[in-house]
Amino acid sequence: MTRTAVVGYGNIGRYAVQSVLAAPDMELAGVVSSRAGSILPAALQNVPVVKDIRELQKVDAALLCVPTRRVKEFAQSVLPHGIRTVDSFDIHTEIAGLRGELSKTALRYNTVSVVAAGWDPGSDSVIRALMQAAAPRGVTYTDFGPGMSMGHTVAAKAIDGVADALSLTIPLGTGIHRRNVYVQLKEGADFKEAEKAIKSDPYFSRDETHVYEVKEVSALKDTGHGVKITRKGTAGITDNQRLAFDMRISGPALTAQIMTACARAAMKRQPGAYTMIELPLIDLLPGNREDLIRQLV
Amino acid sequence: MTRTAVVGYGNIGRYAVQSVLAAPDMELAGVVSSRAGSILPAALQNVPVVKDIRELQKVDAALLCVPTRRVKEFAQSVLPHGIRTVDSFDIHTEIAGLRGELSKTALRYNTVSVVAAGWDPGSDSVIRALMQAAAPRGVTYTDFGPGMSMGHTVAAKAIDGVADALSLTIPLGTGIHRRNVYVQLKEGADFKEAEKAIKSDPYFSRDETHVYEVKEVSALKDTGHGVKITRKGTAGITDNQRLAFDMRISGPALTAQIMTACARAAMKRQPGAYTMIELPLIDLLPGNREDLIRQLV
Repeated sequence: MTRTAVVGYGNIGRYAVQSVLAAPDMELAGVVSSRAGSILPAALQNVPVVKDIRELQKVDAALLCVPTRRVKEFAQSVLPHGIRTVDSFDIHTEIAGLRGELSKTALRYNTVSVVAAGWDPGSDSVIRALMQAAAPRGVTYTDFGPGMSMGHTVAAKAIDGVADALSLTIPLGTGIHRRNVYVQLKEGADFKEAEKAIKSDPYFSRDETHVYEVKEVSALKDTGHGVKITRKGTAGITDNQRLAFDMRISGPALTAQIMTACARAAMKRQPGAYTMIELPLIDLLPGNREDLIRQLV
Repeated sequence: MTRTAVVGYGNIGRYAVQSVLAAPDMELAGVVSSRAGSILPAALQNVPVVKDIRELQKVDAALLCVPTRRVKEFAQSVLPHGIRTVDSFDIHTEIAGLRGELSKTALRYNTVSVVAAGWDPGSDSVIRALMQAAAPRGVTYTDFGPGMSMGHTVAAKAIDGVADALSLTIPLGTGIHRRNVYVQLKEGADFKEAEKAIKSDPYFSRDETHVYEVKEVSALKDTGHGVKITRKGTAGITDNQRLAFDMRISGPALTAQIMTACARAAMKRQPGAYTMIELPLIDLLPGNREDLIRQLV
């Protein structure tokens, strides 16, 4: 049994606890949260909740369910204990750099770090790599949504006069997206000004953006999301190979499940840091290797 | 440059030559074919064509484009030269056994064998493994076609009175398939008898099968094929995660391309035999590792 800790008990952490408890080959070592010591949610009644991972017994792997910007700092503090880490760091342009840095720490402390292991980056990256191997010349499009974009929502909330906001990503095909932004204004704020500020924000200025005023943003929130990845390309010299992947999922549930699977894979890797396209997929699954080959290949 | 040989110049071999020539990091070492010495197709004018792989210079990897039933024998004869092999062996129930046997030979001769590396088994296996990791409880359906089934076509051709045949696989959803069989009869053969024999053959008896008489089977043949893989499952305790993969491809072109990509991966593995779900996908792709991570993850 792999003793797995969940670090952070927010949006993803809650689902990570469920995924670890549902895994047949894992034990939940505990939850690391700043809430330790205060009144805990019912789901954590029988779970050790601590402020520092060192307070937990024999931790093999830690799922870092912390904000993306804090992943590096948490990984750097957990890896030196020889604990494997898994994160779902999602700033695409900084993944190679994070992998490089965490690789050094993982090698130094003889452990493993799996980075960017959510759905995009993560399982979508695996799909893109497979599609490119199958049809090396061609174009791959990733069309997100409909679903909530965390990054755009945070950007909209930061606009003057906005009390709460929700930004939905609407796929228009071939990698082009519409942004539907729902805002709840602060008392006395002007909608036209907020709308203008949102539309000129770098997060929104390049996309078709629609801003709507609503009374209660919370009534619009759901965590359902989706993505469609398509590639038309050439295998050898034969063109018109068409590949498509489409999924409709709960964003945080899927992220947590992928992280849990990657913790399993982390137990089988040589020291270092890995993205998902560097892991053999069989290692994401519990059970006997030969049985998995018989069942899946 | 990986010097890659193509063993067998039939249905798949022709496309394998094209894939190897199109690969930026490969050189075609030559083709091994019983046709060596006779008049060669134009595509092989500038390619060494030999009867025995030992006649080729410095071969790193060999794509075994031979009938499935002969894969083992060819692999067992090529691996002892320290050459990596890749095959697209496609009898699902015998893959684990083949992998076990070839693993012993590969380990003994310090080389690598990638088995069952086509589209199904092969890239579809990768998709099934990823879907199961993403939603561990649930059912995956693989729906093939429309396209020609080699196995069913061979079975129909073996029926008394049948001069030529073509069996198309038509997907009816949830893993259920219809078989549309087109037969060209031998002089004096009775259609009703051939139809009855086909419908009672174990290849067809469990499926909805329709048999049609045609004048010229060759006029119906095309190598286009497709597959749809769907899974509805649970991530953690969150149900209704829906994943779908759909591709429309040239069967032999895609098989050859996947084999070529797996030869690349074989160059990077420790000795032994592997199925595709045991290979990190990044190894299927040419180019610098960090660049691939930046581009795909």
